[in-house]
Amino acid sequence: MIILNGGSSSGKSGIVRCLQAELPDPWLAFGCDSFVDALPARMRASDDGITFDADGGVSVGGEFRALEEAWTEGVVAMARAGARIIIDDVFLGRAASQERWRKALGDLDVLWVGVRCESAVAEGREIARGDRVRGMAAAQADLVHEGVTYDVEVDTTHTESLLCARAIAAHLR
Amino acid sequence: MIILNGGSSSGKSGIVRCLQAELPDPWLAFGCDSFVDALPARMRASDDGITFDADGGVSVGGEFRALEEAWTEGVVAMARAGARIIIDDVFLGRAASQERWRKALGDLDVLWVGVRCESAVAEGREIARGDRVRGMAAAQADLVHEGVTYDVEVDTTHTESLLCARAIAAHLR
Amino acid sequence: MIILNGGSSSGKSGIVRCLQAELPDPWLAFGCDSFVDALPARMRASDDGITFDADGGVSVGGEFRALEEAWTEGVVAMARAGARIIIDDVFLGRAASQERWRKALGDLDVLWVGVRCESAVAEGREIARGDRVRGMAAAQADLVHEGVTYDVEVDTTHTESLLCARAIAAHLR
Amino acid sequence: MIILNGGSSSGKSGIVRCLQAELPDPWLAFGCDSFVDALPARMRASDDGITFDADGGVSVGGEFRALEEAWTEGVVAMARAGARIIIDDVFLGRAASQERWRKALGDLDVLWVGVRCESAVAEGREIARGDRVRGMAAAQADLVHEGVTYDVEVDTTHTESLLCARAIAAHLR
Repeated sequence: MIILNGGSSSGKSGIVRCLQAELPDPWLAFGCDSFVDALPARMRASDDGITFDADGGVSVGGEFRALEEAWTEGVVAMARAGARIIIDDVFLGRAASQERWRKALGDLDVLWVGVRCESAVAEGREIARGDRVRGMAAAQADLVHEGVTYDVEVDTTHTESLLCARAIAAHLR
Repeated sequence: MIILNGGSSSGKSGIVRCLQAELPDPWLAFGCDSFVDALPARMRASDDGITFDADGGVSVGGEFRALEEAWTEGVVAMARAGARIIIDDVFLGRAASQERWRKALGDLDVLWVGVRCESAVAEGREIARGDRVRGMAAAQADLVHEGVTYDVEVDTTHTESLLCARAIAAHLR
Repeated sequence: MIILNGGSSSGKSGIVRCLQAELPDPWLAFGCDSFVDALPARMRASDDGITFDADGGVSVGGEFRALEEAWTEGVVAMARAGARIIIDDVFLGRAASQERWRKALGDLDVLWVGVRCESAVAEGREIARGDRVRGMAAAQADLVHEGVTYDVEVDTTHTESLLCARAIAAHLR
Repeated sequence: MIILNGGSSSGKSGIVRCLQAELPDPWLAFGCDSFVDALPARMRASDDGITFDADGGVSVGGEFRALEEAWTEGVVAMARAGARIIIDDVFLGRAASQERWRKALGDLDVLWVGVRCESAVAEGREIARGDRVRGMAAAQADLVHEGVTYDVEVDTTHTESLLCARAIAAHLR
């Protein structure tokens, strides 16, 4: 299992697709985007679910957390059942988010990957994408890495996704 | 857990979204589309993965099946961990596909739902969607239901998704 | 040129794709969705652009109208240059919206098509789509047809998109 | 009017969205992607329409060209009617593609922008996107610029979309 953590617009999804293309074995990719897509539409803009503020802030409620907990256990169960899994996540809870994964993972082997991107550059890419609330990239760029420990760190500020993916792949036995 | 089975363009996704909107508790929705999205891009057109023939036929290979097996176990684990889950699937393996789910489910409670749609109508809706290989709807309309048993059956030929969803919801305690 | 007018979730896009599939000549399809996609992201939620209220109301501002005017002239110019064009529109301005098109069309041949759908059914389909502000379908179902005149009217309440498309196609010489 | 020309995955769309965000006036964005979306589904994989070969080659047929001609005239008419328009195109016909635009533009003011990206980098970004036929980026990287003249050239190999957009914006009076 590979778990990538990085702020919005730091380039995680591009790296995931490159990892899937470069690694000879097939890897399944899941992440916070696919989890949010699985929620009822009404939870994508509610206090119990997830809310995106106009200034880029993101808040999640109790029901969101409960479902996320069960989703995490399920994803880990897929890995235990033999699937290779890549997760891209945004550790809004910082070290606590990593701890949450660690508890679910138990003794399962995992490669922790930090995906960094300078705040100003991520902000520019957020504008270039055009489909994200402005401000998320800047708000999350440093925060999500606080207190988190990694096996590998990549920085997309000056390095293309494909090269980041190759650097990560080199750490897999 | 609710498992919907029906051919391509029979209206499963619309029913799922209506179920999520109508049911007071939050339900997570997964299905063959989200599974295929999680695969490496190269498996979406390869013999080991999944191939869509020009005539609407669909074939899946060994790697696809192995990953699907693990994915199924993971989804069941999410349900065991307390999440309410709706699955929409296409039982290309007919009764054997249902058996595969049954084995993974163990003693977990599940509502089996058959989603039917007259072949000619599903074919018309396939044209109206415009993003599917022509022929899948007709090829799958009856085949996927062979030998499969249900708790509820709905037919979208003359009944709107929302009403189908309400009929299904009425079967949940 | 074919111009379809109908409320949100009345089934216009499905009919357009069926028309494109059924008609032997190639027809280009444009509409209010593709126009809104062409706008700067910031205008998709601003008073000068277009705003979607929580209750399903839609308001457009001065800049929106000015660009829409120029867009209309351009689409008509494509038809004059020999392209067959299908437009799907939502006449929020009712008869005035039709008048706006008439002025731009001049002596160009056009088939006016009304796409109706019972309010309650359109509302259910809006839930089944899951990606639209709830309330738009009901708010627009009747309003957009007030004072508008048609060459053909279709009703998607009980008729499939493909059959509606064939009824429309039958009116083309 | 601003016309951007560059190969697949050279970063045109991101620059367009940044231009729309940075420029104080509202600009409408159209391009080959929105044109292809307007075509009947059957023309997106036919000899008369457009075909994408497995090796990244792209061929267009007679009907495609005829509709593109009319579309070009219509887009120019929008600009004449007062709309500010940004086009992103792929000059598969090289200098002849520019000539085609020039004829349609007449005496209309236009800013010609070349969007370059080193072939290997564009190829990596094509993998990171995951939704394009592999090989298009490399096949088009240099070819589309042959014999074409520009007012501004930007290179996304080492420069972010937002900075490229600002460089382009600086050339507008």
